[in-house]
Amino acid sequence: MQTPQISKAKRQQLNEHYMLRAIALAKKGEYTTSPNPAVGCVLVKDGEVIGEGWHQKAGEGHAEVNALKQAGDKAKDATAFVTLEPCSHFGRTPPCAKGLITAGVKHVVIGMQDPNPLVSGRGITMLENAGITTEVAVLESAAKGLNPGFIKLMSTDKPLVRCKMASSLDGKTAMANGESKWITGKEARQDVQRYRAKSCAIISGADTVIIDNAKLNVRYNELGFIANDLKETDVRQPVRVIIDSQNRLTPTLALFDQKSPIILVRTKLENGQQWPHFVKQIQVKERSGKADLTDLISKLAELGLNTLWVESGARLAGAFLAQALVDELVLYQAPKLMGENSQGLFDIEQLTHLQDAIQLSIEDVRMIGADIKITATVNK
Amino acid sequence: MQTPQISKAKRQQLNEHYMLRAIALAKKGEYTTSPNPAVGCVLVKDGEVIGEGWHQKAGEGHAEVNALKQAGDKAKDATAFVTLEPCSHFGRTPPCAKGLITAGVKHVVIGMQDPNPLVSGRGITMLENAGITTEVAVLESAAKGLNPGFIKLMSTDKPLVRCKMASSLDGKTAMANGESKWITGKEARQDVQRYRAKSCAIISGADTVIIDNAKLNVRYNELGFIANDLKETDVRQPVRVIIDSQNRLTPTLALFDQKSPIILVRTKLENGQQWPHFVKQIQVKERSGKADLTDLISKLAELGLNTLWVESGARLAGAFLAQALVDELVLYQAPKLMGENSQGLFDIEQLTHLQDAIQLSIEDVRMIGADIKITATVNK
Repeated sequence: MQTPQISKAKRQQLNEHYMLRAIALAKKGEYTTSPNPAVGCVLVKDGEVIGEGWHQKAGEGHAEVNALKQAGDKAKDATAFVTLEPCSHFGRTPPCAKGLITAGVKHVVIGMQDPNPLVSGRGITMLENAGITTEVAVLESAAKGLNPGFIKLMSTDKPLVRCKMASSLDGKTAMANGESKWITGKEARQDVQRYRAKSCAIISGADTVIIDNAKLNVRYNELGFIANDLKETDVRQPVRVIIDSQNRLTPTLALFDQKSPIILVRTKLENGQQWPHFVKQIQVKERSGKADLTDLISKLAELGLNTLWVESGARLAGAFLAQALVDELVLYQAPKLMGENSQGLFDIEQLTHLQDAIQLSIEDVRMIGADIKITATVNK
Repeated sequence: MQTPQISKAKRQQLNEHYMLRAIALAKKGEYTTSPNPAVGCVLVKDGEVIGEGWHQKAGEGHAEVNALKQAGDKAKDATAFVTLEPCSHFGRTPPCAKGLITAGVKHVVIGMQDPNPLVSGRGITMLENAGITTEVAVLESAAKGLNPGFIKLMSTDKPLVRCKMASSLDGKTAMANGESKWITGKEARQDVQRYRAKSCAIISGADTVIIDNAKLNVRYNELGFIANDLKETDVRQPVRVIIDSQNRLTPTLALFDQKSPIILVRTKLENGQQWPHFVKQIQVKERSGKADLTDLISKLAELGLNTLWVESGARLAGAFLAQALVDELVLYQAPKLMGENSQGLFDIEQLTHLQDAIQLSIEDVRMIGADIKITATVNK
């Protein structure tokens, strides 16, 4: 401890003060670190911030490394505040715990332990073995809130699946003739762009890609307020995962204009078509003549994709829900009524009794422009 | 003025202070005055409240009369704060303006003028002619908020029409087999009871009455928090208006167990059936083989029913919307998904293009128990 004489209350206050700053730093990487977690680090000595860092992109420096670089020699005897337990293993970069030890840091305050049960606590042990004191779980729930997908994949081997839909207040997504542009307003559509930007992958179906000729990419000029803190060159395109079990897609669709990774999901691989270099195909099991979504999600998890954004039509969204694969529903409701002849939100097969309805818990309801945004978790 | 030397700011502060109290008093009558407006009155002299009153029931004393009664002789030279312009005409009770004059009140502060263009300002003139000074439009929008239906009927000859629906988050009101009990939770259902209680009439269709065997009454033990301030004997049953153009209702239905006024709406009067004394039939025009809802609303307006609560199925609600008769939509959304095979919210005929969708403005969104409550006005 730097100042062992201070009271427990004062110490907690200081811990939370600097951890909040570390969390704010971590958030700067929210739209760019995928599939890595967003992490922030603050180095403090004698009441002065001597270094700040955050993780910006996979393959680049971790938060601790960036903060130590800024602090230089001053890091000796400093206290480090870091939102996530420093790593203890060599990945693309050397272990951060090692870096803190080498720099002579004295005390490390940690937001949350590593969520991977195989390595959780190892970074702390490495620090303690080197004589560094540690405190863990400071503002833990806020620290956890930074990386829900990363945490879920690490702790359960399953990615976080968010399902986005936009409808009128009476639950309609398109007129009977298919007309659907636009039901919600600009603000809601910008919000969707931000979700895309922070997802590892966007999942959709061949129908959406063909009928809407959707690109399913992140468009810098539609990101709204976050564009202030993000350069256009920093924008990362999430992997686009398109379920096309009937092999209906062709390379001339707008989807392929955006030259970033695409995964075509097949039940039988297709070899006749010449695809651009950024397109790959994966084969998943078949289930009632369709792609087995549970198998798909496992395969995406194996690829390290921890945050998935399902943006599809009623059939695919309904199938994800029916197979209990959705964690969170993000529903935008426009202040319109479109009537019973219009197309609805979710085709959910074999749902005939009210007691079998899919139960949700509302997490958040707010206005976004003139629309309502509802965030709900699916009860499991 | 009692204290002519006080500053304009101080005077406004005092005006608002006592007007807020008058509004709070008025609210005590919110569930009992229909079709009369809820009105509150405070009498103040030398900084002391000497009388308070509110209108409790149609046919009983007005707010000013009740406050004057409490003040007795002290009313001389007092200031009266009243949420609505004192009436100038003899109705079931003598004019309140006259009462204030007789009691020797010196100054009258008024929330809002009478909304009836034929008499608006007459009460004020009567007071001024008697040498009483007046101030009008103090906390006017709050005063107006007390009686939206009364104001609308008085100023436009049309009643306020609220349409209530309850659905899942995907806009479903019942399973394909008709199962619908209960989609929303207890708190939402209590909220519905409160809306019923403050409405002049509940409108529904024969389907709802027959299929759900609905009573459509106000049930004291389901009123929730307002029951604390309301005696069971004070509960007023709104007129139940049932559209039964096919003459399908029979006196054995649960609707008729509640012995309070029922209006059966017919396109052709029916004479074969023996109805209880509290049931009357009215005839409205026919429109495409159904009851003409515009004609119905006019007829209910003629009966002085200013606040109407439509609680029906998808067809009737859709018809009210299609005929632009709904002012306000009150939608309860349960945190459930019921899927596309289930029954939807609104049958709206001839709605095929997105640009023709019914446009709403969201006025309020809030949680009520585990459900979402959305209040929206219909753009006209």
